[in-house]
Amino acid sequence: MRISKSLAVGVAIVVGVSHAQTFQRLGTCPTLGCVFPPDQTDFLAGQYFDIRLEVHAPINGSEANGKQPDEKFTFTIAKEKGKAEPATTYFSIAEPKLERWNFSWYEDLFAKEAGKPSIVNVTSKAYRRVALYEPGEYTATLTYNNGSTTKASWLVRDLQEVRKAKNIIMFIGDGMTTNMITAARLIAHKAINGRYQTKMQMDQFPILGHQMTHSIDSFITDSANSATALYTGHKSTVNCLGVYADSSKDPFDDPKVETIAEMFHRLTGGLVGIVSTAFIADATPAALTAHTRDRGQYGAVVDSFLHGITNYTWTNWTGPDVLFGGGAEQFYDPKLGGKTYLNKDYYSEFSKAGYQVLWNKTSLAKASNDSRALGIFTVSNMAKWLDRNVYKSNLNQSLSPSGDKTAALDQPGLKDMTLKAIDILAKRSGDKGFFLMSEAASIDKMMHVLDYDRALGELLELDDTIKATIAKLKSLNKFKETLIIVTADHGHGFDVMGSVDTKYLAAQNVDRKKRDAVGTYQNSGLSQYANTGNLTYSEGVHFPSNWDPRYTLFQGLMADPDRRENWSVHKDGPRVPAVNITPSADFYANPKDGAGGILLNGTLPVGDDQGVHSLTDVPVFAMGPCQELFGGVYNSIDIFFSMAECFGLARGKGHGQ
Amino acid sequence: MRISKSLAVGVAIVVGVSHAQTFQRLGTCPTLGCVFPPDQTDFLAGQYFDIRLEVHAPINGSEANGKQPDEKFTFTIAKEKGKAEPATTYFSIAEPKLERWNFSWYEDLFAKEAGKPSIVNVTSKAYRRVALYEPGEYTATLTYNNGSTTKASWLVRDLQEVRKAKNIIMFIGDGMTTNMITAARLIAHKAINGRYQTKMQMDQFPILGHQMTHSIDSFITDSANSATALYTGHKSTVNCLGVYADSSKDPFDDPKVETIAEMFHRLTGGLVGIVSTAFIADATPAALTAHTRDRGQYGAVVDSFLHGITNYTWTNWTGPDVLFGGGAEQFYDPKLGGKTYLNKDYYSEFSKAGYQVLWNKTSLAKASNDSRALGIFTVSNMAKWLDRNVYKSNLNQSLSPSGDKTAALDQPGLKDMTLKAIDILAKRSGDKGFFLMSEAASIDKMMHVLDYDRALGELLELDDTIKATIAKLKSLNKFKETLIIVTADHGHGFDVMGSVDTKYLAAQNVDRKKRDAVGTYQNSGLSQYANTGNLTYSEGVHFPSNWDPRYTLFQGLMADPDRRENWSVHKDGPRVPAVNITPSADFYANPKDGAGGILLNGTLPVGDDQGVHSLTDVPVFAMGPCQELFGGVYNSIDIFFSMAECFGLARGKGHGQ
Repeated sequence: MRISKSLAVGVAIVVGVSHAQTFQRLGTCPTLGCVFPPDQTDFLAGQYFDIRLEVHAPINGSEANGKQPDEKFTFTIAKEKGKAEPATTYFSIAEPKLERWNFSWYEDLFAKEAGKPSIVNVTSKAYRRVALYEPGEYTATLTYNNGSTTKASWLVRDLQEVRKAKNIIMFIGDGMTTNMITAARLIAHKAINGRYQTKMQMDQFPILGHQMTHSIDSFITDSANSATALYTGHKSTVNCLGVYADSSKDPFDDPKVETIAEMFHRLTGGLVGIVSTAFIADATPAALTAHTRDRGQYGAVVDSFLHGITNYTWTNWTGPDVLFGGGAEQFYDPKLGGKTYLNKDYYSEFSKAGYQVLWNKTSLAKASNDSRALGIFTVSNMAKWLDRNVYKSNLNQSLSPSGDKTAALDQPGLKDMTLKAIDILAKRSGDKGFFLMSEAASIDKMMHVLDYDRALGELLELDDTIKATIAKLKSLNKFKETLIIVTADHGHGFDVMGSVDTKYLAAQNVDRKKRDAVGTYQNSGLSQYANTGNLTYSEGVHFPSNWDPRYTLFQGLMADPDRRENWSVHKDGPRVPAVNITPSADFYANPKDGAGGILLNGTLPVGDDQGVHSLTDVPVFAMGPCQELFGGVYNSIDIFFSMAECFGLARGKGHGQ
Repeated sequence: MRISKSLAVGVAIVVGVSHAQTFQRLGTCPTLGCVFPPDQTDFLAGQYFDIRLEVHAPINGSEANGKQPDEKFTFTIAKEKGKAEPATTYFSIAEPKLERWNFSWYEDLFAKEAGKPSIVNVTSKAYRRVALYEPGEYTATLTYNNGSTTKASWLVRDLQEVRKAKNIIMFIGDGMTTNMITAARLIAHKAINGRYQTKMQMDQFPILGHQMTHSIDSFITDSANSATALYTGHKSTVNCLGVYADSSKDPFDDPKVETIAEMFHRLTGGLVGIVSTAFIADATPAALTAHTRDRGQYGAVVDSFLHGITNYTWTNWTGPDVLFGGGAEQFYDPKLGGKTYLNKDYYSEFSKAGYQVLWNKTSLAKASNDSRALGIFTVSNMAKWLDRNVYKSNLNQSLSPSGDKTAALDQPGLKDMTLKAIDILAKRSGDKGFFLMSEAASIDKMMHVLDYDRALGELLELDDTIKATIAKLKSLNKFKETLIIVTADHGHGFDVMGSVDTKYLAAQNVDRKKRDAVGTYQNSGLSQYANTGNLTYSEGVHFPSNWDPRYTLFQGLMADPDRRENWSVHKDGPRVPAVNITPSADFYANPKDGAGGILLNGTLPVGDDQGVHSLTDVPVFAMGPCQELFGGVYNSIDIFFSMAECFGLARGKGHGQ
């Protein structure tokens, strides 16, 4: 966390915006003149970025001032105490053309209810693909409306350019919190008299940190926004991938920032691998190469994996060496029902670019380590560990990655994908090294649907994957040159408060009586998931020996839709806690879910059918070169800067280069 | 976390106990022969402890075997592969007399509902005040019932005896989790574009760790149990202070373990300070000197502060040099309504022992640093920061520490007490150093009653106290010789999921419509507690500038009684979420609480009127000598061993000494 020396800038900006909360005109722009990147932005020396300027003229609402949006605004850059130069001079680029648009927003819920939006006219310019090289503080100044100014204090961090790690493997447990790690440990590792007999791999990391996930314009983040912070060092807005959110309607014209994957590849020629258990166009994998205001542009995201950004001059991107995950519907031919970018067959596109195309665990295992590989193993998100390993009949759905509507029965897990990715990257990268992001995506997805068992299963699979990764790196003699980071992108408000006697719960007929099944404090007893039977105490693979004990965890989220809670494993596949059973958009407890449980009214808006993200700082575990950079408490963006420092990616070539 | 080499011991013990969960015959004794300290116990070399042996003969229930409890059981100790010797020989002590008793328990909730307890006859012996000196593994073996054995694997940790810190200050935020720290930061520290402009003191600590709070016989702990783990290195049972729980009815005969305060004082002559915002006989302060199965023995706890344990030979304890907190009713004369040990006036008792007796902030400030001091500032728990500083009229209650039923208006805060404690300890300790425990008790107490604002206020006061402590130590030139640890004893399942438009909430008449007031993700917006007005960005004292903004935090616990939630500050004092409004013991939402909010049904048993503790690992922040011992993830007991190592308290004098 940096404390800016130019504090007055921030104070001036913040005053007067306290009225806008649930909705904001434009989150990072409380005044009528907007600069992106905004105040308090840090850059890696030499990192590409776009600049977007906007001048707002509210036509109605509390900010209306009767003015037209200024067409003659000016913009300057000054380093430290130096002279302020026009951006065109400073960056040696042509003056961009003036753009115009308008947008509307609601000032609060009453305005929304009354159907009274506020309309804003906008003038704007965008300076594309610039960079700052010399470390130090800069002031960017937008002057508009006859002398009003918006100043942004920018800092180019002064980082060493020496490379300390050859490879970085970044594990992201999507939505994973310390609370969930604690619960996963409880169900998979045996304790005797308060002592765990085996350790989670994460618990054995030498360095622990916490990262703050607060996004740029709201304190709760989504996975797009938070992935952008982790990969670029730039906080952003919900739904943004690798851009700051401007107010225009075009989802592809927002000001971009270069990602760790793009910089690493551009500057060192190092290889990039992307692995996720989500559909591969989902936010966490997408944010490594995509640049859009709208994370829902899945087809374009898949295209950007392969071709990078093509609508503006950007960086030289030639595709990751490994791309493994789900989401076949964004790849296969639209004739089969695919929903692809420009109606192309992306299996064919990747194949033409030299990729092996893999559709199942068997072909993954057999794939060559010499060629680039695309592995797409299912339609939608990949099957969960619990369904692949315990409740296997749930795999019988029409989700084949080929698009032929058969079942995707032979899906790999995160461990299979990650180990193969390392094999390929290690073989192909030679002296150049690699960056691999491996995401346990369904911790988040299963927490969203209140399916705690499946979420914890995914977390345990992540831990097992990390353990196997360390062994793999050692077997390849690459352990000492590889930094391993394990973190999350945000939390869910989850904890465990005791145990539930599910037999007693089911035997009661009245909700208030069912609550007696809950055991807290001394009545929580011991975990029945791992403490039954003659489990051995090996340091091997650890998952619960019994997912369906009589005494389950009294666990949950804190922000929920209406639901019926029986605190038992959902054997018939991922949970659906709430359903729309009225003509309205209202969700009620799913009558097919939580049999015998307690009917609980939710706290979230009734249009929500699942849980939401939470505020909490999330843990960071680090091991390897530069591990010392990841201890203590810091901002999410610091993870980008620490990874970039470890790779030696700063390029202080001097002004204008 | 230690992985025992003698694994078979643990496996043998655990099999067959999976039926007992909500209730257990005796948590640490799944077989019919019980050894305390039980299997998997670690000791500091030279630490005093008692041994309790029990043989159980269940008369009825699933374990009944028709036997009488064995009177001729034997007990041996063996070091490593050495010869097993009778305990009397090993410790050179006389054979204790045989004791007998019986107790009853319920096998599960159905048995409880049917009123069918299981009765157990017991024979027992206790060996008092022994110690193990030589580092290494020991096996303690109870042989009973003609050859059945219960083996306990004990380890005396091999720690250096070199003292590295002169002083240790241990801050305990009772019930404090990472999630709460994140929320407190949000309401008290201003953020601009996702960057906090100031830092919490905790966030600036160089070392971060997580401790697992799992207790010895249940996975959820209470504060007595967890404080025992932190202060003695021995996990225990809910409600236990400095003892393992045996099955006898006497709350004072359970096997004791020596605490860090007792060892530090006995071995080095160093001084001890105890500060808490709770009533001072509450679990967290009490566990430093009290030894009882029942944390509710408040009078005896107060006596033990002064006299130590007197019913058995124990350690030479002459009282702390500083004892500051609430709970006057356990001190003043029973004629005034006091509830004291043996009906004595404990102000008089402490005064006779040379203590200054202080009743308010004014006298605290004026107190001499040359004499020991007892400061008792109110009946019950001390006033909360929010009431002392913002809603002051709530102090008008009959809580004077004198017992005269006037109001306790002039109460100090945690900072006042802690700084004065340091002044006294620093002045009086000379070369001997001091150990100070300072507890922000009402983080927990306010989370229990779902009063999130007050809980976060207490957390911020703790942070402010830590900051002031560092400055104080520097001013006394004692900073470099002092280890500062900040941690918690357990969690509460709390998080923040967004914001609430309280104006919109109040304007709706239907619960399902009220839920639209909740803003998640991008609609969470920015904190309105700290981001309003011209707050300066100093590194000074940080509390919210506005506790009652229109847009509040959408925050809460995950295990609740029935309640009405309006997510607004409780201006008329600490919250009472549920009340008993029927002739039964059932609690319902308090009709006077949460006006205009959403009525929410709870999940806890309806006899509960407040929230409960949670499972989550809690954070540990360390700064100073030995700070490196506190990074990463470890067991709660490791905090005791690391503090003892830092003080050099291990005493490997050799066998039998």
